[in-house]
Order: sequence, then C-alpha cells, then structure tokens
Amino acid sequence: MCELLGMSANVPTDICFSFSGLMQRGGGTGPHRDGWGIAFYEGKGLRSFHDPDPSCSSKIAQFISQNPIKSTLVVSHIRQANVGSVNLENTHPFSRELWGYIWTFAHNGQLDKEIFDWPLVHYFPVGSTDSEYAFCWIMDQLREEFPRRPTDSQLLCEFIHRCCEKLRTIGVFNMLLGESNYLFAYNTTKLWWIIRKAPFGEVTLKDCDVSVDFKHETSITDKVTVIATEPLTHDEKWQKIATGELATFKLADLVSQILPAT
Amino acid sequence: MCELLGMSANVPTDICFSFSGLMQRGGGTGPHRDGWGIAFYEGKGLRSFHDPDPSCSSKIAQFISQNPIKSTLVVSHIRQANVGSVNLENTHPFSRELWGYIWTFAHNGQLDKEIFDWPLVHYFPVGSTDSEYAFCWIMDQLREEFPRRPTDSQLLCEFIHRCCEKLRTIGVFNMLLGESNYLFAYNTTKLWWIIRKAPFGEVTLKDCDVSVDFKHETSITDKVTVIATEPLTHDEKWQKIATGELATFKLADLVSQILPAT
Repeated sequence: MCELLGMSANVPTDICFSFSGLMQRGGGTGPHRDGWGIAFYEGKGLRSFHDPDPSCSSKIAQFISQNPIKSTLVVSHIRQANVGSVNLENTHPFSRELWGYIWTFAHNGQLDKEIFDWPLVHYFPVGSTDSEYAFCWIMDQLREEFPRRPTDSQLLCEFIHRCCEKLRTIGVFNMLLGESNYLFAYNTTKLWWIIRKAPFGEVTLKDCDVSVDFKHETSITDKVTVIATEPLTHDEKWQKIATGELATFKLADLVSQILPAT
Repeated sequence: MCELLGMSANVPTDICFSFSGLMQRGGGTGPHRDGWGIAFYEGKGLRSFHDPDPSCSSKIAQFISQNPIKSTLVVSHIRQANVGSVNLENTHPFSRELWGYIWTFAHNGQLDKEIFDWPLVHYFPVGSTDSEYAFCWIMDQLREEFPRRPTDSQLLCEFIHRCCEKLRTIGVFNMLLGESNYLFAYNTTKLWWIIRKAPFGEVTLKDCDVSVDFKHETSITDKVTVIATEPLTHDEKWQKIATGELATFKLADLVSQILPAT
C-alpha cells in the first residue's frame, strides 16, 4: 500500500508542512520505501519530482521541504511496491496530456491483474504498474466520451466517478487525479481531507515533532484543502471521504460530491 | 533564441560539468533569462526539472549541478522568450507519451505563426509557444504514420527528418528530441556535437572557470556524446551538424545521419 497527499488552495501555497510529515512515512515512520513523487501545478504548467529512493533519505525530498514551491494544486505519493519493480518509470504520480491540460494521477491500493486486459486506444503505460495502467484507461475513457472538454464540469465529475466505480469492482482504488484547476479524490478504503481557513491556529504533525502556527503563515482569506490517506495532524478534525465517493475540489472548495448509487 | 544541451551515453553518466557551463548562459554569460529545463532518462522513466526563473540564479539548477543525476539520455534547454509568456507551461523541454515511451523535446529558433494553423488530432499544446505546438505536430504525424512503433529505427529517423524539413520551411528549427534510447538532433542554423571517449584528457569550460580531467571520472569503455547550440569547451574538437541534417544517437554512438535531399 502507499500514501497519498493532495492539496487544493485558493492562493499559491507551499505544502512543506504537510510534505514534511508525509516524507517521514517513506521509510521513517512508515514502510513506504519504494520511491515517492510530487507534482505542483503553477497555472497550467506542472513541476514534478520523482525519486525511486525512500523519501525519508532523499536529497530531492529534503530540497523540496526546505525550498517552498508555491502551488494551488499538488498531487503527491509515496510508494510501497506491490505490482511493478522499484524504478523511475513505476514511480507515481503519472502524467498525460488531454485537451491541452496535463493530468496527474496517483493511486493507493491494488487492482486485480485483469486490469491489464482492459483495452487501451490512446494512452499506453510506460512502466509496469496496475496504477499507471488504470490511469491510462481512465484517460482513454475520458477521451472517447468527450473528444473535447465538456464545459459543464459536473459532467466530468460524474463520468470520472463511473470510471472509478468500475475500477473499484476489481480491487482497492484510492486515487488523486488533478488537471491544474480540479482535484478529484476517490476513495475505496481510506482517504481523508481537511480545509484550513481563518481563524487559523497551531497544528502539530503526527509523524515528526513539527508544529506550525498558520496564523503567521497566512492571510485571512486563504483557504487550503489537504487530502491524505491518513490524517497528518493531531489537533485538527479530518473528514473521511466515503467508500465509493468522488470528492472534487477547486481552489480549496469542495465543488462536487458524488456518492455511489444505492 | 535559446540554448540546447543534449547527452547520449553508453553508461549512466552525470552531466554536471556541461550543465554548469550551460546554466551560466541563463542570465550569466548569456541573455537567456526566461527559464530553463532539463530531463534525464533512467531506463524508460523520466526525471525532469523546469524553472521559469533564470538558470544562473536558480536554486534547482544549483541543486542539480551539485547532486549528480546519472542518465544515459539528457535533453536540456535555456530560454530567451520570443513567442509565449515566461511561465512554467512555456518552459522546455516538453514531454508526451507515444507507444508507451515518454518523448521529450526542446527547440531553439522561431517559426512563422502559420504553425498555429497546422492541424492537430491527438496531441495539444498546454502553453502558447510555437515550439510546443511544433512538438505536438511531430508527435501527431508520428502517430498517424505509425499506429505502432516501427521495428526498423531507420524508418523512424527518416520520417522525423521529413517532419523537421517541413518545419524548416517556416523558420529556424534546431531541436533535440529523445525517447529513452534514441536522441534525435536536427539543425537549421547551429548545433554541435562531440564524443568523449578514451583516451580522456582535461577540458575547460568556456563559460566559467571550471576544468575537469575525465581520466579520473570515467572508465576506458565509457562513451559520452554531448550536443549543444555552441561548443561548450575550449580544448575539444566539436563537429557541426549540417543545415537540414538529422543526426541520431543511441548510447553515445551516431547511428543515423540523414541529410536533406539535394
């Protein structure tokens, strides 16, 4: 299993604080030694870092946690390999271009090997993971359904939800999917989120002895949503995304919430 | 105009030495202040860094030049903007997946604005540069011509050469294009290359007071080809790629050389 971390903010925000907690889980407080990656959107551009080495001892991870990169949308992942060797091409997050946007994807869970028989037309995996294959399949489905980007984003959410529900039938599928504005978070087993906004207070990371008082770091209109496999802090009230739910965030706000058909 | 730097090597090699010279041109010894990027292949995986800030003062560029990343294929670029704003999505190199390989592209030159009328079907630009548009067009052409990757790589070289020749009719098109094994280098006005192999000696960068004695850095079977807009060193004999020539390298060797029809 792996750990996911996502961020959606209404102003460019650095994720150093939450990332410091996550990187400890990569071989430090957690068993996820098989690489890590993080992707930061700046406008439609993407800045991404990948390392097949454990995040807790990675020089690039250390560089990122010391040199704030401000972004309104972040997708990050640390890996404990189950399918696919430990190498760069198997390191999440994965990216593909669709409709002139770079889409970025990270997955926690494991899918039945039948996924590798699902047909692909437009997008093909570079590595050998079930995760990248599932991502290519979602991108393929989106492209087939919408040759052009739909103007109604709710249509997009509903279609992505249907794809995720199909993937859930063959395994554990917790995912983060981003495209510069929208961050889609789908849960099968565990995925939590929190919105940080005024009044800000002091919070402490679970994974290392670091506290931050967001009062000194933010202005009163700032809003930052953080999504993670497990709550990262002690003193905040994290909300669980339901099993089979797709929660979609834009500039920190929860803009769509789709639950499974009952 | 911009500066290109490419490397093709038969063993994973760090490009710190040549990159140190290039990064000085990004606002130091050269006028290319509008961002820089570098992409390193490790197997089929790609590790890339982009920064819209000048390379000579970039913390990420400094990190890379101090922390060797070993690779057999590198594509790098520093930018002096002509078309498109200075931002992350307009920062080379650009990447797209085709046939399960990540293709990476950097361009030096300027194309007539008619490029933006050339039809695209599969790949669309994220930013607003003529360069990324031309890259999407090449990828589109490749995909149309070869729905699957051709087993004969010479066919690929010939087809890429034809695309480049068409682009040369509408402007200056010096480019580097890589896909994990092959590095394609096409020249309109300026592009030079050198192969470094035994017997190795000491060489000195033109752009900063740095020398390296490759004897101490290499083993006798190592071969490293470096391609650059202008020769980077004083004491080596660089060869020019001819106007309209596509030179293709694999593991440091020049494996194909296609000249324009006369």
